[in-house]
Amino acid sequence: MTSQARLTQVTRHMGTKSTLPKKPPTFRNRGCYKHFLPIQSRWSDNDQYGHINNSIYYFYIDTVVNEYLIRHCQLNPQDTTKTRPIGLVIASSANFYAPASYPSLLTAGLSITKMGRSSVTYRVGIFEGDNQEASVVGGFTHVFVDPIHRRPVEALPENMKSGMQKLLVADEQ
Amino acid sequence: MTSQARLTQVTRHMGTKSTLPKKPPTFRNRGCYKHFLPIQSRWSDNDQYGHINNSIYYFYIDTVVNEYLIRHCQLNPQDTTKTRPIGLVIASSANFYAPASYPSLLTAGLSITKMGRSSVTYRVGIFEGDNQEASVVGGFTHVFVDPIHRRPVEALPENMKSGMQKLLVADEQ
Amino acid sequence: MTSQARLTQVTRHMGTKSTLPKKPPTFRNRGCYKHFLPIQSRWSDNDQYGHINNSIYYFYIDTVVNEYLIRHCQLNPQDTTKTRPIGLVIASSANFYAPASYPSLLTAGLSITKMGRSSVTYRVGIFEGDNQEASVVGGFTHVFVDPIHRRPVEALPENMKSGMQKLLVADEQ
Amino acid sequence: MTSQARLTQVTRHMGTKSTLPKKPPTFRNRGCYKHFLPIQSRWSDNDQYGHINNSIYYFYIDTVVNEYLIRHCQLNPQDTTKTRPIGLVIASSANFYAPASYPSLLTAGLSITKMGRSSVTYRVGIFEGDNQEASVVGGFTHVFVDPIHRRPVEALPENMKSGMQKLLVADEQ
Repeated sequence: MTSQARLTQVTRHMGTKSTLPKKPPTFRNRGCYKHFLPIQSRWSDNDQYGHINNSIYYFYIDTVVNEYLIRHCQLNPQDTTKTRPIGLVIASSANFYAPASYPSLLTAGLSITKMGRSSVTYRVGIFEGDNQEASVVGGFTHVFVDPIHRRPVEALPENMKSGMQKLLVADEQ
Repeated sequence: MTSQARLTQVTRHMGTKSTLPKKPPTFRNRGCYKHFLPIQSRWSDNDQYGHINNSIYYFYIDTVVNEYLIRHCQLNPQDTTKTRPIGLVIASSANFYAPASYPSLLTAGLSITKMGRSSVTYRVGIFEGDNQEASVVGGFTHVFVDPIHRRPVEALPENMKSGMQKLLVADEQ
Repeated sequence: MTSQARLTQVTRHMGTKSTLPKKPPTFRNRGCYKHFLPIQSRWSDNDQYGHINNSIYYFYIDTVVNEYLIRHCQLNPQDTTKTRPIGLVIASSANFYAPASYPSLLTAGLSITKMGRSSVTYRVGIFEGDNQEASVVGGFTHVFVDPIHRRPVEALPENMKSGMQKLLVADEQ
Repeated sequence: MTSQARLTQVTRHMGTKSTLPKKPPTFRNRGCYKHFLPIQSRWSDNDQYGHINNSIYYFYIDTVVNEYLIRHCQLNPQDTTKTRPIGLVIASSANFYAPASYPSLLTAGLSITKMGRSSVTYRVGIFEGDNQEASVVGGFTHVFVDPIHRRPVEALPENMKSGMQKLLVADEQ
């Protein structure tokens, strides 16, 4: 237990409030995530400083999100009937806590922090090897649009929503 | 002129304050940037929806930032004497306003919004063709570290700082 | 003129055959190519040895070929009528003669060495900066197929063929 | 056993030579490879035709080769003592037999077909899911050089050679 955690516990027990400044939650624990996908790092992922390049983590994020949507939420990016909505990314971000390097096997953990009428926000943690703390925590917001005119849908299809709800977590740790 | 802009202008002229909620600045104009690099989009940049994949924009951001640092701030990623600091990304983000597609020629615009003792924050706009409004606005924060122990430097070297200061802009539009 | 070239010329004139082993042509001169596209190298193109990764050159090859096909041969990868053939790569190769590195501006030179009923073979040279000799020479063979069943077409459309013929060169240097 | 194989066997037994034209070997069977690495395909691997882009396969090839060299042949790309040779790619090629698509789990199979004084040639098959036939067969030739002057080494270090020899196969199927 960290000293901050211990102090928080003590002050809670005493019914008093810690005066320590509250650090923003970092969501680095595996327990923050509900779906996991192993991802083999690649030679080309390492940049010239010998660590996985920051931009590459967004590939991992894209990979675990769409893999879950395709396998568990009936997303069909190749739908020739053009009747299923597709997800377009409108904002993304990541925090980089520790370096990781090829040839490590990585694991991407996925949870969903917000579901709106047509938009969904994902949080992803990237873990190197057996690490219990994520090297990187990031995510993005999808707006689901019809695949032809690319306008936001009125509502997500029920069989898409039910798959997503399984990953929904409270936004605070 | 948009109606918001017109109203803002009118209320300014009247010496009164608009009661319209203030929208966050988006930094989509070319005028927000001080250094520009043309970047040819690639076949592999387009994803299966036919537009440049969101993750690819972080490659463009990395490319314009490091190009400026190498050419104008004496960054030397291959420095075998290991005496010049290198920049590690600790956080990045982007907002996606409009799609762009290969085979367009893109332009990356760069400015610097914050310079600390060892950290620097960059803002980058990605423009498709002759567009005056950025398709995507993103950026990241570098912490400069010594290349061996990778601990933050006490201060940026003077010849690095002077190059950076040329791109410094006020954080608000 | 190189000494090998001079000897070859002499021996041809004499009606005798050079006994020097014939080196395979390398197609490294800009004069071997008929269409050119500048391509900005990217930070992520360099691998941990500080040079552009070998695999990345295939991205450049893909980029100049499809750019030419889209702009000059009516290729339409996003054709929703599904009536125009698309090109699938069946074989590719490259020879690496000299390293190149980000942040160089590269130029891809393109020529076509073979046109069959449904297949086309491209040769691409990648030049760093103002170099007159290619760092890398590679290429691939496309088979053009109908976009629905992906079977080879009986013949290339005339307006596609006429664009391609402008880049056709004899296969030998 | 295929009919060609059976006929070959029969004619060999009879001391006669098959008159069937000999097709070049394709090395598509898992049995042609001696080391295997699972590689998760990524969203960005698919191009706008919905299949893994041809260039991406070279990333897989790089990944399985260097993973084996690092884990079993003492390759150390980050060697700060600069005493271990590094491998530079001088030629690469691939044949594309069948499409594969994200989100499939792929497996890269590796064997070594030639070992010279300073150069090594690898063959790699990429298998989608449980397929017994490779979608793509490719490979490249490494020249091992000293990491400072990048000149070919006189000989491969013994502990590198012994790891490589475990993957050596006869060049013909």
